[in-house]
Amino acid sequence: MISLLAAPPAPKAGSVSSPPPATAQAPGPTAAQLQMAERLVGPALTEGHAWARLAELTDGIGPRLSGSEGAEAAVQWAQRSFKADGVKVWLEPVKVPHWVRGEEHAELLASEHFRARPLTVMALGGSTGTPSEGITADVVEVSSLEELASLGERVKGRIVFFNHDMKEAEDYGRFSVLRGLGPSAASKAGAVGALVRSLATASLSTPHTGMTRFEDGITPIPAASVTVEGAEMLHRMLASGGSARVHLVLGCKTLPDADSFNVVAEVKGREKPEEIVLLGAHLDSWDVGEGAHDDGTGVAMVMEAARLLARQKPAPRRTVRVVLFMNEENGLRGGKAYAEAHAAELPHHVAAIEMDSGGGRPLGVAFRAGEGAPALVQPWLSPLVALGAAKIVSGEAGGADLSPLGPAQVPMVGVKVDSSRYFDVHHTHADTLDKVDPEALAKSTAALAWTAYALAEMPGLLARPTAPPKVPAMFAPPAVATPAPGAPAAGSVKPSTH
Amino acid sequence: MISLLAAPPAPKAGSVSSPPPATAQAPGPTAAQLQMAERLVGPALTEGHAWARLAELTDGIGPRLSGSEGAEAAVQWAQRSFKADGVKVWLEPVKVPHWVRGEEHAELLASEHFRARPLTVMALGGSTGTPSEGITADVVEVSSLEELASLGERVKGRIVFFNHDMKEAEDYGRFSVLRGLGPSAASKAGAVGALVRSLATASLSTPHTGMTRFEDGITPIPAASVTVEGAEMLHRMLASGGSARVHLVLGCKTLPDADSFNVVAEVKGREKPEEIVLLGAHLDSWDVGEGAHDDGTGVAMVMEAARLLARQKPAPRRTVRVVLFMNEENGLRGGKAYAEAHAAELPHHVAAIEMDSGGGRPLGVAFRAGEGAPALVQPWLSPLVALGAAKIVSGEAGGADLSPLGPAQVPMVGVKVDSSRYFDVHHTHADTLDKVDPEALAKSTAALAWTAYALAEMPGLLARPTAPPKVPAMFAPPAVATPAPGAPAAGSVKPSTH
Repeated sequence: MISLLAAPPAPKAGSVSSPPPATAQAPGPTAAQLQMAERLVGPALTEGHAWARLAELTDGIGPRLSGSEGAEAAVQWAQRSFKADGVKVWLEPVKVPHWVRGEEHAELLASEHFRARPLTVMALGGSTGTPSEGITADVVEVSSLEELASLGERVKGRIVFFNHDMKEAEDYGRFSVLRGLGPSAASKAGAVGALVRSLATASLSTPHTGMTRFEDGITPIPAASVTVEGAEMLHRMLASGGSARVHLVLGCKTLPDADSFNVVAEVKGREKPEEIVLLGAHLDSWDVGEGAHDDGTGVAMVMEAARLLARQKPAPRRTVRVVLFMNEENGLRGGKAYAEAHAAELPHHVAAIEMDSGGGRPLGVAFRAGEGAPALVQPWLSPLVALGAAKIVSGEAGGADLSPLGPAQVPMVGVKVDSSRYFDVHHTHADTLDKVDPEALAKSTAALAWTAYALAEMPGLLARPTAPPKVPAMFAPPAVATPAPGAPAAGSVKPSTH
Repeated sequence: MISLLAAPPAPKAGSVSSPPPATAQAPGPTAAQLQMAERLVGPALTEGHAWARLAELTDGIGPRLSGSEGAEAAVQWAQRSFKADGVKVWLEPVKVPHWVRGEEHAELLASEHFRARPLTVMALGGSTGTPSEGITADVVEVSSLEELASLGERVKGRIVFFNHDMKEAEDYGRFSVLRGLGPSAASKAGAVGALVRSLATASLSTPHTGMTRFEDGITPIPAASVTVEGAEMLHRMLASGGSARVHLVLGCKTLPDADSFNVVAEVKGREKPEEIVLLGAHLDSWDVGEGAHDDGTGVAMVMEAARLLARQKPAPRRTVRVVLFMNEENGLRGGKAYAEAHAAELPHHVAAIEMDSGGGRPLGVAFRAGEGAPALVQPWLSPLVALGAAKIVSGEAGGADLSPLGPAQVPMVGVKVDSSRYFDVHHTHADTLDKVDPEALAKSTAALAWTAYALAEMPGLLARPTAPPKVPAMFAPPAVATPAPGAPAAGSVKPSTH
């Protein structure tokens, strides 16, 4: 993460990217507006309310994959909680995929130099099941879709093993395409199954699930993640010149689409209620662990921002709307449904923030907007100096749920958090409440609440971006994913993390 | 780990414990003896032979719990390998327990504030199975055997949950008693099952198995480990004033004892062949993962030390004997069988080293011996300076397999390795080859080979200790486990790590 502008002293010309002159003197908050900072940041840091909500959602409800009872319970809980917090709330219907996990196990069969042993697997969302007796096939290893394509006939009847060398969080975008599109490509090439190395920055025999998507017209095949340990073992077996034969049993299946909801809440603006600052997070999670970092922390942060804003007088100039999206993990139906249902309003969406990178400490603010966004917002960040969050930082703003707002050129703002350990637990049984640091969660909640207020209160508006945000590779052809020419000088496009 | 004597300069009086005057001028190696260092340390560091053997054992054979086909395959492999290495080898029969894991799963049932969810469990070795439909009971949490005793009638019909706050490797000894003796105590108090928080220094939803022992006359009950995450969740449920009810299914059982073997190999001494320097490690492992650090690395190190010593001319003055013990993990039958079969020889066992703390880098040498051991050995450690291993360190020497040699007052020498991350993977599916650092393994192998040579070659003998070494709590009443008065000033007694 590279800081482009240090706060509060003005940057020296040349050393950092200078804001355009037109907006260089954007006004900061008035004394009255600054008083609001203590009424937002103070309680966020001291009341522990976001943590309490997070515990209710993770321990109380637990996993909440779309279509599950947990997801339905989460919708009801969120609606109840917003009401209890004094925030206006309603449900908006979303039809969601309903994929369910079943029995799952695999065995690495004996070969010349290896005795048989179990291979820890976890079905990928969207995978089809195997016959009840499982499938058995030789494994062929590839490390890219290009390498898969180069193998031609040699893939027929095999299980394709997608290996990679993910080491840090930043590698996720590069390798998630193997999980997202690899099994479909393997099926197209004649494979009978796919194993994907978990997208992990640490492992203690910990499989990571996640979505895989089969192209229209391609027959789904059984697809599962293997642990880092299992992947390393498969690689050693194959690299030693031997063969690897796997028996795979997956009981997962896709049921008919289910009825669910986005949970929408808002704090009406006092002057320009039709102008909307959207705060998003996703209420669904994978079906393993309890979705603490993904995305319980995001849900807790946006709910707490709404609660704190709702009790302030005067309300901010513009409306702050919170959307708890359903089905971010395996379909993005909530994001799409919101964009469709609110199409007429989207030109009045003046900023959108998605919290979906875990509950780490706050790092600063990023933009996907037209020119001048940093200069407009920087003067408003001074209350966040002591939280270490008063910086404009590079990196992508937006998120998977917000990607359907792209064509409407909604300005995206990122309240960035430290995600360096996010992929230790992402999509695993280990994504549990004990992994969340209450201090970091409170700080990021405070940063979000104040940033939301600033965007809803400041006199100026962010210029709209001239190109849509990155759409996750799974949901659109790569050609769509070009960064906007007018976007800030981000080092690299932040990968989607669903 | 505190260094008591820095090498090679002589320690200042007062700043460290001074060696007794009688042995203060013990002779170091001659030039010819020092030449042997390069012929042992050099190949250990450059040939990668220990690593290759480790890969054969872990990847090739895999897990090898006593009584399993893997254990039998390991015996055959070890015998073949010693022969191939030019080391005399034979098998000594050991009757071993034959415990097998079965289906295992658990569910945390719904309560007022918590929805139901799976609880990751792993049966403890020695546990009995549940009926096929499982058992269901309320959970009561304790953090010590004393607290359990204080609960009286309240334990009846419950599942006792042993919680603790293990944070670092040094905590293992303190808390392993909960796993080793807790379930038996729970049964005695009327409990129907036991759950023990994994003895772990890190967790990504990673259960740790290990031995539990039921006292004679106590009915075994189903006993399983839970992950750190599961333990934290149970604790939160109970701490919030709610109840926690668990459904537990364990299919484990104990079969009739099986035939197995210790694998014994030796390099005959040139002058005093009847005097034996014993190098031990254990060939069995738990049935999960592939026993890489526990104790594949120990096996690889002692085998490589034997191979390197066997090809030297002249042979060392005394005999170096390697014992690959069977059944360290769940019965110690190999250690006991060796002590019985070789009872007549034990007075001539002049030193014994057990490598069973993982494959970390070498840290130095520790003793459980009579007075003067550090002064006798220190002059021989100079070839290990560049490996960082030329220090006399505090901490326990010996090991579980060597504990039956205690009554014969065999001097124990510890070639200590860095075990700080050992309990991240100990007794888990994650104890796999990828967790071993080839550099650290090579260095510790070199340190072991040279130390073994030094003990077999030096003119003097270590004085015998005046009290037996610590016997693991599971195998003897705590009263036996008093450190020897004559032992070096160790900060704390190194826990057994089986």
